[in-house]
Amino acid sequence: MPAPAIPPHVFVIFGATGDLTERKLLPALYHLMQRRTSEGCYILGAARSDWDDARFRNFAREALEKDGVSQDDLATWCDQHIYYQCLGDSGGDISALRQKIDAIEAEHDLPGNRVFYLALPPRVFPATVEALDEHGLSSSDGFTRIVIEKPFGHDLASAKKLNDHVHQFFREDQIYRIDHFLGKETVQNLLVFRFANALFEPLWNRDRIERVEITVAESLGIGDRAGYFDRAGTLRDMIQNHLTQLFTLVAVDPPSAFTAEAIRREKVKVLQSVRPIDLGKDVVFGQYTAGTVQGEPVPGYLDAEGVADDSNTETFVALRLWVDNWRWQGVPFYLRTGKRMPEKRTQIAIRFRCAPVALFDEMDSDDTPVQPNVLLVTLQPNEGFDLRFEVKVPSDAFRLDQQQFQFRYEDAFDKDLPDAYETLLHDVIRGDQTLFIQDEEVETAWALYAVLLENDVPVHDYEAGTWGPDAVGEKLLVSWVTGGE
Amino acid sequence: MPAPAIPPHVFVIFGATGDLTERKLLPALYHLMQRRTSEGCYILGAARSDWDDARFRNFAREALEKDGVSQDDLATWCDQHIYYQCLGDSGGDISALRQKIDAIEAEHDLPGNRVFYLALPPRVFPATVEALDEHGLSSSDGFTRIVIEKPFGHDLASAKKLNDHVHQFFREDQIYRIDHFLGKETVQNLLVFRFANALFEPLWNRDRIERVEITVAESLGIGDRAGYFDRAGTLRDMIQNHLTQLFTLVAVDPPSAFTAEAIRREKVKVLQSVRPIDLGKDVVFGQYTAGTVQGEPVPGYLDAEGVADDSNTETFVALRLWVDNWRWQGVPFYLRTGKRMPEKRTQIAIRFRCAPVALFDEMDSDDTPVQPNVLLVTLQPNEGFDLRFEVKVPSDAFRLDQQQFQFRYEDAFDKDLPDAYETLLHDVIRGDQTLFIQDEEVETAWALYAVLLENDVPVHDYEAGTWGPDAVGEKLLVSWVTGGE
Repeated sequence: MPAPAIPPHVFVIFGATGDLTERKLLPALYHLMQRRTSEGCYILGAARSDWDDARFRNFAREALEKDGVSQDDLATWCDQHIYYQCLGDSGGDISALRQKIDAIEAEHDLPGNRVFYLALPPRVFPATVEALDEHGLSSSDGFTRIVIEKPFGHDLASAKKLNDHVHQFFREDQIYRIDHFLGKETVQNLLVFRFANALFEPLWNRDRIERVEITVAESLGIGDRAGYFDRAGTLRDMIQNHLTQLFTLVAVDPPSAFTAEAIRREKVKVLQSVRPIDLGKDVVFGQYTAGTVQGEPVPGYLDAEGVADDSNTETFVALRLWVDNWRWQGVPFYLRTGKRMPEKRTQIAIRFRCAPVALFDEMDSDDTPVQPNVLLVTLQPNEGFDLRFEVKVPSDAFRLDQQQFQFRYEDAFDKDLPDAYETLLHDVIRGDQTLFIQDEEVETAWALYAVLLENDVPVHDYEAGTWGPDAVGEKLLVSWVTGGE
Repeated sequence: MPAPAIPPHVFVIFGATGDLTERKLLPALYHLMQRRTSEGCYILGAARSDWDDARFRNFAREALEKDGVSQDDLATWCDQHIYYQCLGDSGGDISALRQKIDAIEAEHDLPGNRVFYLALPPRVFPATVEALDEHGLSSSDGFTRIVIEKPFGHDLASAKKLNDHVHQFFREDQIYRIDHFLGKETVQNLLVFRFANALFEPLWNRDRIERVEITVAESLGIGDRAGYFDRAGTLRDMIQNHLTQLFTLVAVDPPSAFTAEAIRREKVKVLQSVRPIDLGKDVVFGQYTAGTVQGEPVPGYLDAEGVADDSNTETFVALRLWVDNWRWQGVPFYLRTGKRMPEKRTQIAIRFRCAPVALFDEMDSDDTPVQPNVLLVTLQPNEGFDLRFEVKVPSDAFRLDQQQFQFRYEDAFDKDLPDAYETLLHDVIRGDQTLFIQDEEVETAWALYAVLLENDVPVHDYEAGTWGPDAVGEKLLVSWVTGGE
């Protein structure tokens, strides 16, 4: 089956000479166009650097080669599909950009479909958005869409301000707030898994589920991001967006249709049903000290370059959320993420309640009680699903053992999983907002965590290479399915 | 963990020089005793042949070697554990047997635990049972148990008569009606799977399950069993026992405890809830004609040696059962078994209802509707469980594909699965009747099928190597998960 064609358009990248463009956007657009009929699709880079088409095409070719593309006539492909426009020293010469777009559209007889991707620092979002409108680029004969990278504000007030500003120039249905995390196959598949399989939905509630654990563990430290990270911290960097997204996808009610609007409405409903977080009971912050990760000794957070000596920034957060609705009342959702943990692992564990009657307990000569069923959704490493269940051990009368049903993407589909950016850029061009974050969703999430931003949460030390501070076990009293006590 | 010890006992085999003893009973007893502490366990063969201990020990050694046993001092082991007693020309010299048992028990200082395994033709069961009692062998200082091979009668009246007769001499808790089918790991595991996993029980009812299919397909013909089979037919040979057992294990309500008595009670309840079979609607009989099975041309049933030229015996049965209780009302159970089918396969397919709202149908560019979930319990080949579910195909927006969770015994447990006889003989010696068939169960099953035995059911031809007569599809209107239309 041939993939459906991509509508003809000009894909404008602001910040075209930057790292994100080189590592992610150009490869994603290239693969997207290779996999499908993509006649009339063009990339227009825009940045302050005084480059021309030729230089940016060369930059693009090198970026694609670095990404592993080995097409013979790659240079020709770049010549045919890629353009560049310098925005001047201030980065604000939008009228030149407008002329360039008009020229490309005229040359190729395009219908005026445009995407503006702002691969820019958050502080220049507002001016850029305003300038686009000023030069008549907020609408066109075709579609005009704008893509904004996270972070979407740094608290409720700043997020509201940013949203209000952008809304002066673009309608919400033109705005694509991108978080690459949502482009991962397994994240998208969560919705399919829940709502295309009649098997799971009847179990997906407080009667059958004892608790949910969401872990995004990183083995790395902060790398060269100290400047940003030490101001932001893990709550802003990971919890407010990634883990909250996973949480809402697990917890949402079935949408009335599989449309962006219907799904977003349900996600907001869940966020609004979360009980205000109890600072004293439901949250643990941590900061890593020196330790050993995967056999390598690593320095502590405070020793990282660019981190203030007395920094109190959290590099680890564990949270317990309670959802006060009919489906989830009384079921704790544990969210946990941190840097310098023992391994890189993104995983959702749905732990089901035990069988109401332990028919087999007394016959198990091993004296291990019957284990509850667990559904593991692994996003990395090795994306897939596992379902732990009890079976009888062969021979030896009725001794039980926990085994698992397994499903791994790489076993089932021979092709490589597309990069998250490829998926998401495709959605932008197709006009599907399902995997992008809505204004109300961003603000509701910030509102939920306001209590943690506005108060001093104690930060506990944890040794690099561990599953977080001891306080997690002492305070949250959870025994995680994977890692930690 | 060492396996628990076997209680000391004498295991008496009637029909000790026969095929079943050689191929199944001796290897099963040997492995059973090897795997566990088995001090004080002895085998006493009994038959009409004028053999002595030495000759039977030699017979046993050869049987074990044929089974692949390679113990160096196997002959010594046989000398130490095996005895023989001739029962005379009539096969009825039970007083000599009694003396031999007494002698073995005295020699080894045994507590008087005895098992009598009747590996005999059904017609001599009654006399043998009576003779045991007459010579004081129906009870002892320890336990006394009697094992009876199927068939347990050939219809309701004969089964009742046999049960009544045996009950004159033995209590029901002494009687082990053995069907090796129930000794298979996956059959036993059905109960564990259902009642040790809180995940499945909430789904196990008419609200969630659309239908159940039970298939026991054989690729072989009748071999050299024409004499028995042409009189019995597939209904008696397979449906009344094997498929009915699988059916009841799928359909039972949770027992009050995991004891033989509690489980049997629930199984009888299910059988009693089955709606009387509608001859006109719910049953198809078939008989195979010449055809090709797994690439080999094979003759038809009527051409098999020992089959009457005008035989109307069924070699295939497909049935639809309806269980009129709260759990299953309106859910059809399809039972299907036959000889000379395309492959050897024993499988239970639980087909769940579709999701109530097809959120994804319209977005599937393939136009294949979302498939319902299916749980496959495979008993052979390659014992295990599969759970079919829908996932999103990587890339290409929201196209769905059915994949499966898999679990295979041989992947999970490195040891070989014990033979069904080993499991069942162990249960006899341990005194666990769970996997044996109770008097009431036998009679209820015969009563259920009486309408098929007492009426002429039309027998349709089917070509060897197919999934049965066309009438199955036309009449039962089922599209099987595996094989057939």
